[in-house]
Amino acid sequence: MSFDSAEYEARLARTRDRMRAQGIDTLIVTDPANMHYLTGYDGWSFYTPQGVVVPHEGEPLLFTREMDTGGARLTTWLEDRQILGFPEGYVQQRDRHPLEWLAAALAGRDLGDGVVALEMDSYFFSPRAYEALRRSLPGARLVDAEELVNWVRSVKSPAELELMSRAAGIMERVMRVAVDAVEPGVRQCDAVAEIVAAQVRGTEDQGGDYPAIVPMLPTGIGTSTPHLTWSDEPFRQGEATILELAACCRRYHCPLARTVYLGHPPRKLLDTARVVEEGLEAALGAVSPGATCEGVEAAWRQVIARHNLEKKSRIGYSVGLGYPPDWGEHTMSLRAGDRTVLEQGMTFHMILGLWMDDWGYELSETFRVTSGGAECLCAFPRELLVKR
Amino acid sequence: MSFDSAEYEARLARTRDRMRAQGIDTLIVTDPANMHYLTGYDGWSFYTPQGVVVPHEGEPLLFTREMDTGGARLTTWLEDRQILGFPEGYVQQRDRHPLEWLAAALAGRDLGDGVVALEMDSYFFSPRAYEALRRSLPGARLVDAEELVNWVRSVKSPAELELMSRAAGIMERVMRVAVDAVEPGVRQCDAVAEIVAAQVRGTEDQGGDYPAIVPMLPTGIGTSTPHLTWSDEPFRQGEATILELAACCRRYHCPLARTVYLGHPPRKLLDTARVVEEGLEAALGAVSPGATCEGVEAAWRQVIARHNLEKKSRIGYSVGLGYPPDWGEHTMSLRAGDRTVLEQGMTFHMILGLWMDDWGYELSETFRVTSGGAECLCAFPRELLVKR
Repeated sequence: MSFDSAEYEARLARTRDRMRAQGIDTLIVTDPANMHYLTGYDGWSFYTPQGVVVPHEGEPLLFTREMDTGGARLTTWLEDRQILGFPEGYVQQRDRHPLEWLAAALAGRDLGDGVVALEMDSYFFSPRAYEALRRSLPGARLVDAEELVNWVRSVKSPAELELMSRAAGIMERVMRVAVDAVEPGVRQCDAVAEIVAAQVRGTEDQGGDYPAIVPMLPTGIGTSTPHLTWSDEPFRQGEATILELAACCRRYHCPLARTVYLGHPPRKLLDTARVVEEGLEAALGAVSPGATCEGVEAAWRQVIARHNLEKKSRIGYSVGLGYPPDWGEHTMSLRAGDRTVLEQGMTFHMILGLWMDDWGYELSETFRVTSGGAECLCAFPRELLVKR
Repeated sequence: MSFDSAEYEARLARTRDRMRAQGIDTLIVTDPANMHYLTGYDGWSFYTPQGVVVPHEGEPLLFTREMDTGGARLTTWLEDRQILGFPEGYVQQRDRHPLEWLAAALAGRDLGDGVVALEMDSYFFSPRAYEALRRSLPGARLVDAEELVNWVRSVKSPAELELMSRAAGIMERVMRVAVDAVEPGVRQCDAVAEIVAAQVRGTEDQGGDYPAIVPMLPTGIGTSTPHLTWSDEPFRQGEATILELAACCRRYHCPLARTVYLGHPPRKLLDTARVVEEGLEAALGAVSPGATCEGVEAAWRQVIARHNLEKKSRIGYSVGLGYPPDWGEHTMSLRAGDRTVLEQGMTFHMILGLWMDDWGYELSETFRVTSGGAECLCAFPRELLVKR
């Protein structure tokens, strides 16, 4: 496990404070990042139903497929009797569901009634799982926990910040490898092979873990849209490539985006890069404990509006612990309307992406909120990276 | 796109045949693999709500976040007017949901009533999304589509088999790299760096895509359980490592598992390896068009029972197209009770994993069903791979 028992106890205590405030008797956590946060559990088993049950008192329970209970014993601080495996016969069947089995297990522990809160918008909790639980726990009042544990995660401990800092150390190497690898005539897949190897190799002191998102590197006309991965087509002279990457250290992320240009970049791309960098500096300058998420975004918007640019989407989000498909924490966003007040120890990925008709540009930084303002985790040149 | 328009038309026609048979007017597909299968859509955007709407006649609609509509235009055969982007203001908000927006868009196209089928057990469709749709489409009767499109996917076309065969070509290289990389004293992350690079680099003729599951390589006592990934601890002399890997070509997978031992393996591991190989051969020998999934498993069970071994979990599943977190297709399983009849062109990952108190063993093959029986996609030695 990455943390000592005092840290896990503090996490559980903060989770229970929120449970009390929301009137929750039993919380069922299904987001793999939240499961990891509370128990240390780490395995690629989220493709079958699993979760952590947090009663208002007593030790949490972890439920997973029977074959994965061994992984839970090896990676969590839970005692063996708190780890429940549903029988293999429940896996991917049409006439029964693992959460029916869970409901019976909860009822047997007097956890099957009262207010039971569920993560109704987490990735690996399906409507069918919800319906199975609803039918099988007739004495419970099911409510939406919303992002309860995600919010507990928003202020990072010193130990968590240390892991993110190590991820940043890996990230600087990864971005250097990526920029070097993008060359005219090189197949995209060959460049990505170098990138993924650097992500996993890490540094001499710290190996890398798998990021929650694979390398995204739209190139050419693909830069007009985010979230494209790679092909085996070659990079071309006279084209831009956006590198949206992350490094991960024991499930903690440091993402970073840069844009590379092969050849002589057009004026509009150079101009945009300068405006975006100015906007980034203004937004980072607006960060301080007590400032709001929307205040940070407003500082950016003011700069780019002066240059007649507009960005409709948010410019950042809380980042840290994550599993596929997202390293974002689904709590705070840097956007108009989000009045969350920044606190020391919060961490964000500020990502400034502009996607135009047939071109685009991205620049990002991962930063932590300190008493002195925003502290970027990586040191990497921020301009359009031109390779002639 | 990886396929010609005739192939996409045939897929849509088969999907509609099943829709008619199940009495479905409109099908909403949210599984990224099913979206890709029907339209070609390919991007890492499944972390916000998206889907493909298939009406009983007329062109399908794709809905996604506004910023991802560009990716949909670049990767699908759909006409621009069939691609709908929900506004950025709907992303990760507590007071509104993208599927409310979708419901309004469907109502405006007369698709908001009748029998609307949903993939109630797909990964990226949450209970909250379901509730939003249910509330916003009062005129619709919502039903579970179950794995409708997954079943359409179960028999592969020649073009799909070609992609899986290319994935197999990559897979053989990946496994060779992996076996070479596992050495006493080498950090697990350094070996995995080689593995992921080989997965993505592919061959001279075909670059690799990202597999739906990262490399899993439990080592030492970790071999007693599946689904563990890696750390930066070194491999140790006198320990086994299970390599459960895949290669992916344009989203089509070929998984393969082997077990490596560093040093002189204990007798029980050698004996188990021989029994498992014998069981594998028996199970593969039972494969033919007309045989059943459970018949294949029975052939395996008969062999290992003779050696007093037992395996409670299934020994395989339908494999092919996939996105994280799973390359399995969630339809057929090779296990008792599954009476699905095998047909030519079906493809399976037969994975024989035994997890004991403090050790384990895995061996797998990906095969296709041909008129002559099972045809394994990879050629790689099947015994326990001993490195002295």
